[in-house]
Amino acid sequence: MALIVQKYGGTSVANLNRIHEVAKRVARNVDRGDDIIVVLSAMSGATDNLINMANQITESPERRELDVLMATGEQTTAALLAITLISMGYPAQSLLGYQAEVRTNGDHCNARIIDIGAHRITDLIRQRKIVVVAGFQGCDSDGNITTLGRGGSDTTAVAIAAAAKADLCEIYTDVDGIFTTDPNICKKAGKLDFISYDEILEMASLGAKVLQIRSVEFAKKYNVPVHVRSSFNEKEGTMVVNEYDGMEKIVVSGVTCNKNQACITLRKVPDQPGVSAKIFTPLAKEGIQVDMIIQNTRSNGMTDVTFTVARLDFKRAVDISERIVKEIGGETVRTAHEIAKVSVTGVGMKNHSGVAATMFDALAAENINIRLISTSEIRISCVVLEKYAELAVRVLHSAFGLDQKSEFNGADA
Amino acid sequence: MALIVQKYGGTSVANLNRIHEVAKRVARNVDRGDDIIVVLSAMSGATDNLINMANQITESPERRELDVLMATGEQTTAALLAITLISMGYPAQSLLGYQAEVRTNGDHCNARIIDIGAHRITDLIRQRKIVVVAGFQGCDSDGNITTLGRGGSDTTAVAIAAAAKADLCEIYTDVDGIFTTDPNICKKAGKLDFISYDEILEMASLGAKVLQIRSVEFAKKYNVPVHVRSSFNEKEGTMVVNEYDGMEKIVVSGVTCNKNQACITLRKVPDQPGVSAKIFTPLAKEGIQVDMIIQNTRSNGMTDVTFTVARLDFKRAVDISERIVKEIGGETVRTAHEIAKVSVTGVGMKNHSGVAATMFDALAAENINIRLISTSEIRISCVVLEKYAELAVRVLHSAFGLDQKSEFNGADA
Repeated sequence: MALIVQKYGGTSVANLNRIHEVAKRVARNVDRGDDIIVVLSAMSGATDNLINMANQITESPERRELDVLMATGEQTTAALLAITLISMGYPAQSLLGYQAEVRTNGDHCNARIIDIGAHRITDLIRQRKIVVVAGFQGCDSDGNITTLGRGGSDTTAVAIAAAAKADLCEIYTDVDGIFTTDPNICKKAGKLDFISYDEILEMASLGAKVLQIRSVEFAKKYNVPVHVRSSFNEKEGTMVVNEYDGMEKIVVSGVTCNKNQACITLRKVPDQPGVSAKIFTPLAKEGIQVDMIIQNTRSNGMTDVTFTVARLDFKRAVDISERIVKEIGGETVRTAHEIAKVSVTGVGMKNHSGVAATMFDALAAENINIRLISTSEIRISCVVLEKYAELAVRVLHSAFGLDQKSEFNGADA
Repeated sequence: MALIVQKYGGTSVANLNRIHEVAKRVARNVDRGDDIIVVLSAMSGATDNLINMANQITESPERRELDVLMATGEQTTAALLAITLISMGYPAQSLLGYQAEVRTNGDHCNARIIDIGAHRITDLIRQRKIVVVAGFQGCDSDGNITTLGRGGSDTTAVAIAAAAKADLCEIYTDVDGIFTTDPNICKKAGKLDFISYDEILEMASLGAKVLQIRSVEFAKKYNVPVHVRSSFNEKEGTMVVNEYDGMEKIVVSGVTCNKNQACITLRKVPDQPGVSAKIFTPLAKEGIQVDMIIQNTRSNGMTDVTFTVARLDFKRAVDISERIVKEIGGETVRTAHEIAKVSVTGVGMKNHSGVAATMFDALAAENINIRLISTSEIRISCVVLEKYAELAVRVLHSAFGLDQKSEFNGADA
C-alpha cells in the first residue's frame, strides 16, 4: 500500500503495443494495492518530428508556439494510456500540465518548475483513480503552455512525487538501470544497485544521459527515492538515494565520457584582475555555456586561459574569442575540437587519497596524454584526444576495480 | 478596419504548404487594416487518424480521454499557423479552447458551448495581435477538455465572432460556397450568393454538410453574418444572413439529398392514445435518432406507423421495433433501407402555393414513386427509392428554375 509515481520514457510508449504493456504493469501494481501516478513522455521520435515540422517553416520557430506544438506529444500518450487502462477496467484519468497544476516560469522550451499544486492529483487518488500525467509540460502564471526541456518528463515525475508525497518515484526506461560506465564502450560495465544523488549529478552533467539533471536536483532537495529501471523486464534497477550502506567504501562508482567537447585557449593574455571577466562575460551574453576553465601561470605577467564548450557552440565561441584576445592584448587563439572528457565519479573519493594518482597512472600506462584536468569533491575529469576516449574509459573502469563489480552485478541481474 | 473571424477547415490546413497559404491570406487582411481572429480545424484526416488509433485499443474509447486525444489535432495546426505568421513578421498567438475561454457543458465528444469569455482574445486584439484559436475544443467547468462534435470548428468560429462582436465570420472551405444542390449529382448546380439562416438550417440537417448546424443556430441567435467561401481562390462565396433582398421571391433555393436513411414500418398497431410513446420512447432511450415520422389512419382501429432512421442505427432500431410490435399487439415490422430523402428548401415557399404540387408532378413525370412525404414551413421532403435519388435531384433542380440560376452564377464566379 504505497503511493508510487511511475515515469515511462519514449521507447516505453513508442506504440500502442508498448502502451498496452505499460498499462498491464500499472494494473499489476494497482492489483497489489498501490496507488499509482503515471507520468509519460511522448512516443519516441514524436517530439523530434514536431520540431522538424516547425523547422520546415522557419529555422527559429517562436518558442511559445513551439511549446504548444510539442505539448501535443505527451497529451497523445497520456490520453492513449488512460483509454487503455479504462478499457481494461481500471479507472484512470489523464491530466495535462496545467490540469496537474505544474506551474513553471515563462522560459519557453526550457521552463523551470516553480511549484506543483497537487490538489487535483490528490483528489483523484482519493477516488482510487490512476492518474496519468502528461510529462514535460507545465504552464506559466498567464496560463501559457511551457515545456521543461529535453528529459523534462523525469523532472515532472520527481516534482510530482515530491508534491504528492509519494513513497517512491520509478523511472522506467529502455536500460536496466545506471551502469558503472557506458556498456557500448566497455563490455565489463555493470549495473549499480545504488547511487547517490550527488554522484549522479556529477555523472549526468558529464553526459551519462540517464536522468534529466534537474530531476535529480529535485529528488535531492525533497529527498525523493528514485528507482531507475527497465520497462522491458521485471529486474530491479538502480536506486538513487541520498545515502546508502557502504557508500563511502566505494571509491569510484562510475566512469563517464563526453565527446561533445571542444577546447579553446587564449594564449599570453595579461595576468591582471578583470581579464577573466572580459573573456567570459561576452561568451555568457551569447548564451554559450563554458564547461571547464583552466588558467595556468606563465612568466612575464602573461597567462594562458583555456576553456571547453559544447561542439555546437564551438564556432561562435572561437569568433568571440578572436575578438576578445585582440581587445585584451593577448597573443592568439588556439583550438582543439577532437577532444573528449573522461571522468571518474564517486562519493568515496572524498575520504580516499590517491584517486587522482591512480587515474593519471592508468592513463599514462597506455600512453594517453592528458591535456586538461579539472576536479570536484567527488569527481576527477581529464581531457584527452577523442581517439583515446574509449580506451581511457576501459582502462579506468578496470583500474578502479569496476570490472569486478560488473561481473557481480551481471550474475545478480 | 473590421474585426473578422476566419475559420479554415481541414483541407485548408492539410499540410505546411496549405498553412503557409492561409498565413498569406491572413496577412493580406491584416495589411488592409483588419483585425483577424483565425479559428482552425485539424489537418484533414488527422481527427480520423486519432479516432482510429483509439479504436485500435477499444471499440468504445472513454469519451473524456478521447477528447484529450482529439484536441491535439487543432492544437497542432494552431501552433503551426502561429509559428508561420510570426516567422513572416506578423505578431500572432495561439489559444487553445480553455485559453480562449470556450466554456462548454460536460458532454464529451459532443459538447455544447455555454458561453465564451472573450477577455483574452480582446486583450490580444488590442495589442494588434492575430489570434489563432484551436477550433472544435472547449473546456467544462472542471477544466476538462471537451470537443464539439463533427464540424465543431464552425461553431467555435461563429460563437467567437458573437462573443468578440466581430463584423463578419468567414468560413473557408474547399468549395466556392453553398450550392443550389450537390454539383456531383447535378452539373447545373450553381453557387448561391445569399441564403438565410433558416434555409441553411433545413439544408444542413438534410445532409448538405456545408456548416455544422449548431454554428448556424448560433449565427442566427446572435445575428452573425457568415461568409462561406473557398480558401483556394479569391472568389466571393455565399453570404448566410438573416434576410436578404428578394429573399421571398426565390421559392426554392436548394435541392438536397440524404441517402443515409432507412425506413421502418410497424404495421397494424392499435390506433390508441399512448401507442406512439410506447414506440418512440424505447428508441430514444437507446440513443436512436428518428427523423421522419408518418402515421396513416387505417380501418378497424388499427394504424401503420412509419419512421426513418440513420442507416447506422437501422439494425438496432429494427430489433427494438420487433420487440415493441409484439408488446403493443401490432402485426409485423416492414423495413426498407435502400431509400433516400430528397428535399427542396426555400424561405419563399411560405408565400407560394403549389410548391408541393410542382414537386410531386416533376417526380411523377419521371415515374419516381414517392414513399413518404414530410414538410416544414420552408421545406418539402420526399422519400424515394435510392436508385432514383440523383435523377430526382436533377429533375427538381430543373423544375424549380435553379438550372437558370446556376448559369447566371457560373458566369458571375
